[in-house]
Amino acid sequence: MASPGSGFWSFGSEDGSGDPENPGTARAWCQVAQKFTGGIGNKLCALLYGDAEKPAESSGSQPPRATSRKAACSCNQKPCSCPKAEVNYAFLHATDLLPACDGERPTLAFLQEVMDILLQYVVKSFDRSTKVIDFHYPNELLQEYNWELADQPQNLEEILMHCQTTLKYAIKTGHPRYFNQLSTGLDMVGLAADWLTSTANTNMFTYEIAPVFVLLEYVTLKKMREIIGWPGGSGDGIFSPGGAISNMYAMLIARFKMFPEVKEKGMAAVPRLIAFTSEHSHFSLKKGAAALGIGTDSVILIKCDERGKMIPSDLERRILEAKQKGFVPFLVSATAGTTVYGAFDPLLAVADICKKYKIWMHVDAAWGGGLLMSRKHKWKLSGVERANSVTWNPHKMMGVPLQCSALLVREEGLMQSCNQMHASYLFQQDKHYDLSYDTGDKALQCGRHVDVFKLWLMWRAKGTIGFEAHIDKCLELAEYLYNIIKNREGYEMVFDGKPQHTNVCFWYVPPSLRVLDNNEERLSRLSKVAPMIKARMMESGTTMVSYQPLGDKVNFFRMVISNPAATHQDIDFLIEEIERLGQDL
Amino acid sequence: MASPGSGFWSFGSEDGSGDPENPGTARAWCQVAQKFTGGIGNKLCALLYGDAEKPAESSGSQPPRATSRKAACSCNQKPCSCPKAEVNYAFLHATDLLPACDGERPTLAFLQEVMDILLQYVVKSFDRSTKVIDFHYPNELLQEYNWELADQPQNLEEILMHCQTTLKYAIKTGHPRYFNQLSTGLDMVGLAADWLTSTANTNMFTYEIAPVFVLLEYVTLKKMREIIGWPGGSGDGIFSPGGAISNMYAMLIARFKMFPEVKEKGMAAVPRLIAFTSEHSHFSLKKGAAALGIGTDSVILIKCDERGKMIPSDLERRILEAKQKGFVPFLVSATAGTTVYGAFDPLLAVADICKKYKIWMHVDAAWGGGLLMSRKHKWKLSGVERANSVTWNPHKMMGVPLQCSALLVREEGLMQSCNQMHASYLFQQDKHYDLSYDTGDKALQCGRHVDVFKLWLMWRAKGTIGFEAHIDKCLELAEYLYNIIKNREGYEMVFDGKPQHTNVCFWYVPPSLRVLDNNEERLSRLSKVAPMIKARMMESGTTMVSYQPLGDKVNFFRMVISNPAATHQDIDFLIEEIERLGQDL
Repeated sequence: MASPGSGFWSFGSEDGSGDPENPGTARAWCQVAQKFTGGIGNKLCALLYGDAEKPAESSGSQPPRATSRKAACSCNQKPCSCPKAEVNYAFLHATDLLPACDGERPTLAFLQEVMDILLQYVVKSFDRSTKVIDFHYPNELLQEYNWELADQPQNLEEILMHCQTTLKYAIKTGHPRYFNQLSTGLDMVGLAADWLTSTANTNMFTYEIAPVFVLLEYVTLKKMREIIGWPGGSGDGIFSPGGAISNMYAMLIARFKMFPEVKEKGMAAVPRLIAFTSEHSHFSLKKGAAALGIGTDSVILIKCDERGKMIPSDLERRILEAKQKGFVPFLVSATAGTTVYGAFDPLLAVADICKKYKIWMHVDAAWGGGLLMSRKHKWKLSGVERANSVTWNPHKMMGVPLQCSALLVREEGLMQSCNQMHASYLFQQDKHYDLSYDTGDKALQCGRHVDVFKLWLMWRAKGTIGFEAHIDKCLELAEYLYNIIKNREGYEMVFDGKPQHTNVCFWYVPPSLRVLDNNEERLSRLSKVAPMIKARMMESGTTMVSYQPLGDKVNFFRMVISNPAATHQDIDFLIEEIERLGQDL
Repeated sequence: MASPGSGFWSFGSEDGSGDPENPGTARAWCQVAQKFTGGIGNKLCALLYGDAEKPAESSGSQPPRATSRKAACSCNQKPCSCPKAEVNYAFLHATDLLPACDGERPTLAFLQEVMDILLQYVVKSFDRSTKVIDFHYPNELLQEYNWELADQPQNLEEILMHCQTTLKYAIKTGHPRYFNQLSTGLDMVGLAADWLTSTANTNMFTYEIAPVFVLLEYVTLKKMREIIGWPGGSGDGIFSPGGAISNMYAMLIARFKMFPEVKEKGMAAVPRLIAFTSEHSHFSLKKGAAALGIGTDSVILIKCDERGKMIPSDLERRILEAKQKGFVPFLVSATAGTTVYGAFDPLLAVADICKKYKIWMHVDAAWGGGLLMSRKHKWKLSGVERANSVTWNPHKMMGVPLQCSALLVREEGLMQSCNQMHASYLFQQDKHYDLSYDTGDKALQCGRHVDVFKLWLMWRAKGTIGFEAHIDKCLELAEYLYNIIKNREGYEMVFDGKPQHTNVCFWYVPPSLRVLDNNEERLSRLSKVAPMIKARMMESGTTMVSYQPLGDKVNFFRMVISNPAATHQDIDFLIEEIERLGQDL
């Protein structure tokens, strides 16, 4: 296992730099020196810290020193973000940073140092000669480093080292050859927006403490509803912590719409409710039903065709069956872009059935929603405008940093009625501004993270046409992959036909298996191929792609492309890598 | 209303800089120039962009130009984060940034530019001469700027302007005089950690894609359980998106522990369940009960004493009452640090009752949990070690950036049994590493934001003793405030006695009301005082503090101190400001 230089984690106080017993000496002198004006203070500090640092420069095999490339700064700008600012972080602690007296200079230098580490990581993330992952087993990572939390503080040099080490073992999710999840890529404007969000460090519950973000959420949700096709973008919605929670909201609101008394009386006061979704739908529907006291047995899984699309006739049959038993169908959740196959349920047919039986129609477009941005591909979601609610995760196909998931609701006011508790310490009714912007009481959460700004800023930077171009390109790449492997020796497609989304599902069949009859033994051996190749991929760190079994189909690769960095060459590389790692199996 | 220079939002293409019709010209030339080695390319680009920018420099009344302080860079470092890098952002778009070919240089310059904006904001946040808030009414903010999302992209200069404008109207939640919420302050190490989290852009569901973060969550939750007092730190837990969700988890798990069949069968299969919490507890208990299909009527609010502490005898009485009706008490949620009074329920007495009647004991220590870090104050949570589950939000009293909320559970494995759905596309059972680190299936969420790193890094930087010092200081400041106002003319305390947490609740009584008898008219007028002062505070932007009514008590101020930047002088300032703004009412 590759490991950084020994002593890495105890670097600051054992490498001979400065005086670990008395870290405050240079700092104390510097604080005095800072009282001089005209840049003299800075120069004196630079001298003090600079001299103290010199011995450390000769310590040989250490990882690149965060401090080593600095020279004295005397720019005296406010704020000085000059990378020349000279600081020896081994002498500094968190208590020296703002809001400490004289904390401005070390703070700016420290944050700039962190930023340099992050920028190096960003550049590396896009470099194909860098590994996607430097894999270590959990026990290795746990045992080789001291991650424990202690009573005593560490100095800022150690803190900077922790940042470097954390990134060393991180998965480069922006790497052009990272295809492992539905959320891939690292958008630079989205990243900048997320840094800003962290810096603003506020909460979405009231306009009072998040005025701009609340307005941007309003504007952005309205735009998304317009794109869905609801007249004038009217309706409601919220950014929630992920698609599973968005789907749970839909179920919660659908139940409340039909039986508002459930809020006070609970499930005991209502008949048995039944939800319907396809057998290929996301597991969060069942998870939500379990949590909401509906129970997983009351989620009926509707059969899919060979492409993974819900079969409307089976839906109608199961609705009738439930009604005959005296149960109450209250929700159909159709999927636009299933997790594994990328299938789009026939939304128009589902909408007709929901209308006929007066059932809330939800569309889980967590993965497929992005296609609404593409004039070429949005037909796949025809009928979404007839939904009562839609889950749409811009953090998936639209490349917004994690997390950014929206739940859109056609009827305005329902979320508020369903969830409000009128907490008088937050939602005072005698505030001096328009209270309709205090959106917190329609949420399940109390405090809520600002997830909207990264989407809003990316949308400004790319325009709708920029998202469209990204989506069209990813779908084109998926088709390219499909065309390569559909007739290639050693590959079998899990289902026939061109991909509807970017999901391409296939088996790689190593030469030793190609000669076998299609029997139990072959299936058993085939089921072990993808996990073996995946393990080798992670150990070599060259690329990452997901696999899973589904129904009676043994482990197969599910390739998905949402990564803006991926090119045709990266698709070629993936195929070559699968063959390189799997040919001897 | 103060507003930035006119044309602010349409700055890039209308100020005469460069050629808006043909933004790609300089870029295209620069891309050619970049093929030269030895820094020549950079110099050529600098010349190209530099020349193009000159006309804009003379455009007078514009806001400070993001680009204006730059001079040519020829350092040729990789990555070059040199602030001298000369770029005219009006010529650049998101498509010029990584992963674009030759995107490295503009990316580093752009991100550095964003960072400069953020650093300026950070410095301002701690400057007492800066306003806490530059308040505008929602319709003003909505109408004066064009926040709408469009088809076409904007250039990066406009994007940088949006960042500046967003921060201009943001609440400075780190400002020393911001006391409005339980979460205040801006920790520099926490901020750095959150920037890193954004840059790593991954998801907590599997070790596969978040190895370090999953391990840090394991280490941190274990440490928190040790501090709670569970033997060896054993047990379970998760970081969830806020205290309300953490409390909902507790209710969900308590129900599952007693009636595991509820997962499949729903609430129809179980008797009527009753939860108990105090009348001063957080509204999320009722919100959770509504969502989980238990119903708000099944949450019994137990009476509190005059200090806001739950009265154990009333709890026992209500439990017996519920049992007599044939209902099943399944959860008592005691509060350690109530939202308004900062009261600590008597946990030992509650624990005895829970033991006697075999009821799950939850402690909502979202606000009070931080006191466990203080040897001086942790006695207030005596008995928390007997809880079955604890909510503890480090983003409140411990100053971790939003969001960071933990739910700790004493029994290991229960969360997993309660929530798992075995999604085979994520939690493959044939992976090559120890699957116990794939923690995603115990969550309600599927994708889950990385909330642990900021807490972990802050803990490393401050040590437990650093958190302790912060907490002791905040409580000392609260006592200082209490001592100032308890006998000061014009102040009435909402309850007697020293504060147990940092909550200090009081009425300010303007001179005109001091002469009135304590009758309906006085109460009616008093109820309008706090909202009026608060509105004036926000309009003048000098400080922010919360107010609310509670029970039969009309609007009063609830001062809370969790802000590490606050000093005695800031407390003095608050009092003076209340008097300045309220004396004529």
